[in-house]
Amino acid sequence: MENFTFYAPTYFAFGRDQELETGQYVKRFGGTKVLIHYGGGSVVKSGLLDRVKASLSAQDIAFVELGGAQPNPRDGLVYQGIELCKQENVDFVLAVGGGSAIDSAKAIAAGAKYDGDFWDFYSGKVVEKDMALPIATVLTIAAAGSEGSPDSVITKEDGMYKRGASGEGLRPVFSILNPALTETLPAYHTAAGITDIMAHLLERYFTNTKQVEATDRMIEGHLLAIINEAPKVIANPNDYEARANIMWTGMMAHNNSCGVGRQQDWASHDIEHELSAEYDCIHGAGLAVVFPAWMSYVYKNGIMRFAQLATRVWGCQMDFENPERTALEGIERFRAFLKSIGMPATFADLGAREEDIEKMAERCVYGNGRSGTIGGFVKLEKEDVVQIYRRML
Amino acid sequence: MENFTFYAPTYFAFGRDQELETGQYVKRFGGTKVLIHYGGGSVVKSGLLDRVKASLSAQDIAFVELGGAQPNPRDGLVYQGIELCKQENVDFVLAVGGGSAIDSAKAIAAGAKYDGDFWDFYSGKVVEKDMALPIATVLTIAAAGSEGSPDSVITKEDGMYKRGASGEGLRPVFSILNPALTETLPAYHTAAGITDIMAHLLERYFTNTKQVEATDRMIEGHLLAIINEAPKVIANPNDYEARANIMWTGMMAHNNSCGVGRQQDWASHDIEHELSAEYDCIHGAGLAVVFPAWMSYVYKNGIMRFAQLATRVWGCQMDFENPERTALEGIERFRAFLKSIGMPATFADLGAREEDIEKMAERCVYGNGRSGTIGGFVKLEKEDVVQIYRRML
Repeated sequence: MENFTFYAPTYFAFGRDQELETGQYVKRFGGTKVLIHYGGGSVVKSGLLDRVKASLSAQDIAFVELGGAQPNPRDGLVYQGIELCKQENVDFVLAVGGGSAIDSAKAIAAGAKYDGDFWDFYSGKVVEKDMALPIATVLTIAAAGSEGSPDSVITKEDGMYKRGASGEGLRPVFSILNPALTETLPAYHTAAGITDIMAHLLERYFTNTKQVEATDRMIEGHLLAIINEAPKVIANPNDYEARANIMWTGMMAHNNSCGVGRQQDWASHDIEHELSAEYDCIHGAGLAVVFPAWMSYVYKNGIMRFAQLATRVWGCQMDFENPERTALEGIERFRAFLKSIGMPATFADLGAREEDIEKMAERCVYGNGRSGTIGGFVKLEKEDVVQIYRRML
Repeated sequence: MENFTFYAPTYFAFGRDQELETGQYVKRFGGTKVLIHYGGGSVVKSGLLDRVKASLSAQDIAFVELGGAQPNPRDGLVYQGIELCKQENVDFVLAVGGGSAIDSAKAIAAGAKYDGDFWDFYSGKVVEKDMALPIATVLTIAAAGSEGSPDSVITKEDGMYKRGASGEGLRPVFSILNPALTETLPAYHTAAGITDIMAHLLERYFTNTKQVEATDRMIEGHLLAIINEAPKVIANPNDYEARANIMWTGMMAHNNSCGVGRQQDWASHDIEHELSAEYDCIHGAGLAVVFPAWMSYVYKNGIMRFAQLATRVWGCQMDFENPERTALEGIERFRAFLKSIGMPATFADLGAREEDIEKMAERCVYGNGRSGTIGGFVKLEKEDVVQIYRRML
């Protein structure tokens, strides 16, 4: 295990009706003038936004609003939000929504306290604790884990670079997780969220660090929980209990408690980001196409690790004479699981085009200052990325 | 799943040589005058105390010292520590040691900011955030989980009541976890620590709350990691990697991330506390005797839950025609595991006496303001506790 530090000081209020306490939590964490940032219509139509605003007003907390955060959130709206925060002397940013609204809110919170261009943080500068306004979330989809992570991903419209920033200042001070708020999600979005959660676990699972049983077992446990609960919510969107189990797992999957002290991979996320930047597909749906393709391309670099995943998580029998067969069976079970929850499997399913492969692979490994390789478990060059995209055709 | 809040803002620095940064972390978290609280000779003899003091001095941080914390820490030393803090205007308490030094330090930190008797917190008063001086730890044994928990257990010498306090103010602001510091522990202490970690997981596992797959899987994962790593450190005390896996699991086992939203049990801890209060045995060793006895007494109240543990964690085959057989096999595997790492199994092994059973059972369910029952999974009355003690003979 490698040396590490771990610090996850987000306060979580979990359960039914917790959003009614939003104003009290904002007060507790020092907010006096809030930017409420959200996405599209569902937050408005469902009445959630009104409940949150009423809760702030009940505590005499002033607020301004900015809606319009979309999946794969763009820098254009971030600049608007930063401007609004500066004009209105906002001292606290509250995201109401899913990963897109939260990531956009994080970018706004960082930019609002920074004299330069917020994109600096997304092209490599670390965000320290005091380099962003405090942010908080009212979560509406179990997926991104951004409610408990120090990470944010934004797409720069000029060049369509989708890039991430990470830093202590981007970890929410509090997050409200009410599983009932996710019951109205379309099945496809629910399944894409589930896929995103699994991907966060698998990006950490594939490592060359030896003897990391503690975190291996945590990741495997989270995956087993997801595999058990996902079919329930696909069959019955109003299964509160299954929603609750997925929601807590989604946070734990990405707060990095199961990723500490080990090298991680993240090539699949990089490869996917080009797809969602190019075609505006849902990130989780893109991951459903990318991850098995990546697995089938790299598994020979770690057959025993893939076999461990297959036996411990997918319930495969270990073939002791031919571990490779077990490794491959695990990948096939993952594919079948993704299909069973309605996720896409190919480029065509995503509306992606073969003729864009070259461009995406180039941007993926060289774009926005990258050095020519991606991935921690297996280092991939441009030609590898091309081959992985081709496996999705 | 029940509604819950979760807040675990401890900063962890994990790995080799991290204790050399103690002074920098104390500074970062605002300490200017520190009480260093520790136990017996090993912290002194190993040179750890000197390294910590040098690290404080390098940051120009003043300190006073109080040694002498013993296993099953007593209120007498706590009062001394509180007095010292008040005399010396201490504003930060640093524990260097295991659960005993840490729990004692927590009690001192609470008492030093409180005008009344610190015992108030241990007889039921909640410790709020600002009701204790900030505390931090340099951990020397993987066991109690106190390095990442808001809990502390102290024995009141008058009546030998061993009782716990819990509250946000008792959660360390930072904890330094260097697995190498645990390599010099005697095998018996290492094994007792391992047992304590497993007990923290099992106390949370046994619940009547339904549909808690997310936390079930986390607990099972932590147990599987412990079961895999424990034999390695018993065979080779210098196995740093196994020590590291156990240390991180030990913290995760008790920071309550795997206990949220579910009723928990804790009867075995209550029953054990009477043993360690009475005979001054090591808490983890006491738990090795108590937990299987408790299990054998209560398992009929939750055969399928015991069968789940047996199959998922102990690798038992599920007997679908007779789940009770599987449940019992799981308990026997647990007993065998504890024996394999050198833990005691009976009253005699602990130096406990049959003639004290009545007194201990009385104190356990009625002592220090208790209402006559203990336990969340199965409510136990005095006669039940007597029967459980008798199973340890």
